[in-house]
Amino acid sequence: MSTEVKSDLYKEAGVDIDLAQNLLKSVKEKISSTRRPEMLAPIGGFGGMFQIDLKKYKNPILVSSIDGVGTKLMVAMMMEKYDTVGHDIVNHCIDDIAVQGAEPVFFMDYIGIGKLRSPLYEQVLEGIADACKAANCAVLGGETAEMPGMYGNDFDLVGVISGMVDKDKLITGEKIKAGYAAIGLASSGLHTNGFSLARKVLFDQCGYDVHSTPEELGGESVGEALLKPHTCYWPAIKEALDSEEIDLDGMAHITGGGLYDNVPRILPEDLDVVFDKNALPVLPIFKLIVEKGAIDPVEAYRVFNMGIGMVWFVPAEQADAAIKICADAGFDAAVCGKVLPGNRKVTVN
Amino acid sequence: MSTEVKSDLYKEAGVDIDLAQNLLKSVKEKISSTRRPEMLAPIGGFGGMFQIDLKKYKNPILVSSIDGVGTKLMVAMMMEKYDTVGHDIVNHCIDDIAVQGAEPVFFMDYIGIGKLRSPLYEQVLEGIADACKAANCAVLGGETAEMPGMYGNDFDLVGVISGMVDKDKLITGEKIKAGYAAIGLASSGLHTNGFSLARKVLFDQCGYDVHSTPEELGGESVGEALLKPHTCYWPAIKEALDSEEIDLDGMAHITGGGLYDNVPRILPEDLDVVFDKNALPVLPIFKLIVEKGAIDPVEAYRVFNMGIGMVWFVPAEQADAAIKICADAGFDAAVCGKVLPGNRKVTVN
Repeated sequence: MSTEVKSDLYKEAGVDIDLAQNLLKSVKEKISSTRRPEMLAPIGGFGGMFQIDLKKYKNPILVSSIDGVGTKLMVAMMMEKYDTVGHDIVNHCIDDIAVQGAEPVFFMDYIGIGKLRSPLYEQVLEGIADACKAANCAVLGGETAEMPGMYGNDFDLVGVISGMVDKDKLITGEKIKAGYAAIGLASSGLHTNGFSLARKVLFDQCGYDVHSTPEELGGESVGEALLKPHTCYWPAIKEALDSEEIDLDGMAHITGGGLYDNVPRILPEDLDVVFDKNALPVLPIFKLIVEKGAIDPVEAYRVFNMGIGMVWFVPAEQADAAIKICADAGFDAAVCGKVLPGNRKVTVN
Repeated sequence: MSTEVKSDLYKEAGVDIDLAQNLLKSVKEKISSTRRPEMLAPIGGFGGMFQIDLKKYKNPILVSSIDGVGTKLMVAMMMEKYDTVGHDIVNHCIDDIAVQGAEPVFFMDYIGIGKLRSPLYEQVLEGIADACKAANCAVLGGETAEMPGMYGNDFDLVGVISGMVDKDKLITGEKIKAGYAAIGLASSGLHTNGFSLARKVLFDQCGYDVHSTPEELGGESVGEALLKPHTCYWPAIKEALDSEEIDLDGMAHITGGGLYDNVPRILPEDLDVVFDKNALPVLPIFKLIVEKGAIDPVEAYRVFNMGIGMVWFVPAEQADAAIKICADAGFDAAVCGKVLPGNRKVTVN
């Protein structure tokens, strides 16, 4: 079993460790299915072990990132649907290291919760296992902590990803040049950012609940639109890294801060990027939030991804090849901007 | 800056991202002081990068573990003292992988909190940085998430450790034989386990608060005794691994489940261990809890470490050398048990 449940309570306080073990059993097979050959058999469950494949990496760099799902969890609780947040935490973590060219190799989760309960617990772990399996990333370990006094009915979900890349294959953005094309890869929705503003507008201001179906969403409920899982771009990135047709010289994962704050993180300091906001469709959920909340466009593009979950930078003449790689891997993508001489400024027109 | 602050709130919701940045600034130097040469300069802060030192490891195994501090955080909040829980999370994580022979190399933290505030935030990060520095472990990254609707006035603290060990130096426990000595290394107190029971007995049943000074504690307050940081055993383990005088064939980190549950995790299935509960002093805080709570001794040794935070297994004739290594590294240690033929049973007499 790669996931450990601890409870800081004891029998007399009414906690049923057996419940935890039974719930875990039902997802054990799914978690086990994420195994990779580099994983060593566990030793007493103290730490998970992963062997570095020296045939694969001459100069191995480990890339790690830790993240939470944030208040998207509150929408999951309102919907009583917990598998998608498992996908969210895994995919968010993977995208955060994949933009540096790292292959995701193992993942660990932490669930802090007031009272362990079914089906929440199995659904979260199933979502995690399914998302890891899809990206060929092992679930190496996990920790669940029951703390009634702290979480009440709520829970928090934290993920840690580790990936590997050879040092000379690290993608740093430093090779990006003026004239490069910015390729936008479509997002599925808010991913894991902007939920406080979205909840404020949709629930507090508009009076919607998760089951409301405003016509702007074309039949989808507010909860369904908000819970769409974070897109995992690794399948497209992997193809691009393996391809000899394109030089993928920079990638930015568009999370909190939007295009404005995330693109400059990898942009050389003497370059600007000008984005065209009409290059990719703005999803209905964004239109609804922006319109109902009368949100300033600049603010909207700072809080939300607005339909672009990732940006790739390639030489302009390789843009079509890059878009084809994305399409073949199942991702909508389009040229959505251009790199110009400047001073690390991002404009969205 | 190796720690990232995200807030799922925005200006109009009254969150001051500048506050977070200012608080971070004050601990930036401490966090930076934990750098190791294997760390690469950050790329836009997406993922932290750590180079595997192939001169040091022929067949490198990465050992990782994720953990939380649990409801010891509540005692920290009652004491309004937040540095020690930083030490707790780091040291707990380090001990969890050090028992497999892994050198801790980098650490990442997650802080989930209702409202970011000073001095809580700096104290937690200072504690983390100090504990990492002491173990020569780099703070590679971190994440702070402000979620008022979820945490209220509380916070949670999660840590992830990664360590390295050469495959043929992994310590698995499989070489432990009948006749081996069990060396107990003294704990500083509860470490990070048993706080729900401790709080129930001391606060609910006895009516103490954190500032109470029951005579059993010899002048120390309840809060001081409870908050004693988790001991980091890595300095002693490192000396033992480097020493040619002893064969350190097994180690168990005594956390939740106590001697009863943690020792069998690394014990070969045909062996038992019999512990002598008088071999190391039982700390006053344990005596107080057990006496006031009328806790059954077996229950006490299952919930608490009762003064033994780690157990080493060495051939009996090497026990003195092992104890000397511990003493030289500043740790109280004593032979506290013996390995016998059996079926993975632990007895405490």
